[in-house]
Amino acid sequence: MLDFQKKYLQTIEDALENYVYTVPDGQGVIREAMLYSLKNGGKRVRPMLTLAFCEVCGGNVYDALPFACAVEMIHTYSLIHDDLPCMDDDDLRRGKPSCHKQFGEANALLAGDGLLTLAFETLAKAENVKSADIVRAVGVLSNLAGYAGMIGGQVIDLLSEEKQVDFETLHCIDKLKTGALIKAAALLGCIAAGVTDPAVLSAAELYAENIGFAFQIIDDVLDVTADTETLGKPVGSDEKNEKSTFVKLLGLEKCRQLANNLTAEAVSALEKMPNSSDFLAEFAKALAVRNK
Amino acid sequence: MLDFQKKYLQTIEDALENYVYTVPDGQGVIREAMLYSLKNGGKRVRPMLTLAFCEVCGGNVYDALPFACAVEMIHTYSLIHDDLPCMDDDDLRRGKPSCHKQFGEANALLAGDGLLTLAFETLAKAENVKSADIVRAVGVLSNLAGYAGMIGGQVIDLLSEEKQVDFETLHCIDKLKTGALIKAAALLGCIAAGVTDPAVLSAAELYAENIGFAFQIIDDVLDVTADTETLGKPVGSDEKNEKSTFVKLLGLEKCRQLANNLTAEAVSALEKMPNSSDFLAEFAKALAVRNK
Repeated sequence: MLDFQKKYLQTIEDALENYVYTVPDGQGVIREAMLYSLKNGGKRVRPMLTLAFCEVCGGNVYDALPFACAVEMIHTYSLIHDDLPCMDDDDLRRGKPSCHKQFGEANALLAGDGLLTLAFETLAKAENVKSADIVRAVGVLSNLAGYAGMIGGQVIDLLSEEKQVDFETLHCIDKLKTGALIKAAALLGCIAAGVTDPAVLSAAELYAENIGFAFQIIDDVLDVTADTETLGKPVGSDEKNEKSTFVKLLGLEKCRQLANNLTAEAVSALEKMPNSSDFLAEFAKALAVRNK
Repeated sequence: MLDFQKKYLQTIEDALENYVYTVPDGQGVIREAMLYSLKNGGKRVRPMLTLAFCEVCGGNVYDALPFACAVEMIHTYSLIHDDLPCMDDDDLRRGKPSCHKQFGEANALLAGDGLLTLAFETLAKAENVKSADIVRAVGVLSNLAGYAGMIGGQVIDLLSEEKQVDFETLHCIDKLKTGALIKAAALLGCIAAGVTDPAVLSAAELYAENIGFAFQIIDDVLDVTADTETLGKPVGSDEKNEKSTFVKLLGLEKCRQLANNLTAEAVSALEKMPNSSDFLAEFAKALAVRNK
């Protein structure tokens, strides 16, 4: 874990928990289900990016905290709905029973809806961000998480199931399904710092697109090369599920090379930011050489 | 239909359709599913309230249109998710196949998520509303549609299934499940007009709470007294499903009396609004004497 992550991890964990406020009316189970999935030990990649982009743009990291948490809530809701029987039908998520296994399907559906809605409630609560910038954040997050972004990626993914798809389609699925929210995380950091310069916003997008793409390629590589114990989930599942992957399309060597190139492009995009960030450069590199 | 409704119905229909913009990337089915449910001929009670409250507060009705459409999108997503097999498992919605019957469960789930997300994207697009008021609208809508509001009502409803519940619980379910979004519709109209006076906002809430409660009571009455042809859905379903209703708890006569009292209170709350509104008064009365 890099220094920036060590410094802010607990801050993010506490904030996520605090934003899920207590309700008086007996609907406690939904709060419990939301917290169960939200606190299930993710790497917090997205909120870290939001905080780091706020800092690299000269903003106060703590001002970006509600934005960072909102992105993580969207990410968590998408995992809950993704695991439902009508979608991927996954019983486990990070080694624990998935939300619907623990709380039942109806509660999991509603917990996902609740987190999606809470994300926007949390954005609206950002205290030290100008109203115009909160409105921008609502617009960017809803667009990139919506049917033109993340949800759109899910749809194309569903349509492509059990089909061999080409490089372009696979890239499009990942760009929307995973990349869109990573992009939102980076942009919301810039917006929290009050950035309006299109060149800076574009550079943040470019960084996010490149690390998102590299991340997905390495995911496919690890499914072939890692051992189950290190990865913490079964390897070889892509092969078993006859899933199209970048490894199948390009081979291992070309995948590694592409991931390295994308990482270098991400790092070079950082030159356009108002300040330098060792963390963002190291973070991009760490994602490309990770073994889990 | 009242004059105000006749005047603005087509405006609302067109706006709803226009906000569901076209996406380039092959995820067309999700847009189709969203529009299928959104354009399924509802009464547009909520958006009408938003427009009318904007007008009665001295605002320009057209400025409130994105807010009105956002509330209707939230309402529509809640119906789609409500109809899913893991929830009420309804095959029909307003006489047509429900979204999951038409497009499959996964697409219906995602279409609901898409509409919920699009609601906030639409709020952020309000052109003639001040940023601070858009942020207020995001806060109010997300709170009342979220797990402390509408979703919370669903949860208590699920917990109460196949149980006989008392008046307080039944009122609480309806207040959250249906009432919260009607309240949001009224408040968003005031906010679009730039109202900050707490007395005016409270009056709008009071009107909304009373008509919401009366609406639900009349719903229960009609399930006993109406004929299937007029109602457009099977009557006697509450009895068949052993559902707790206000009619069972209070009897028909007391229900009618309570609905009349609530309507009178709603109408009298309108006295606190900056302008008078024949429509809002007539609308409250029409909901109480409706036969379908």
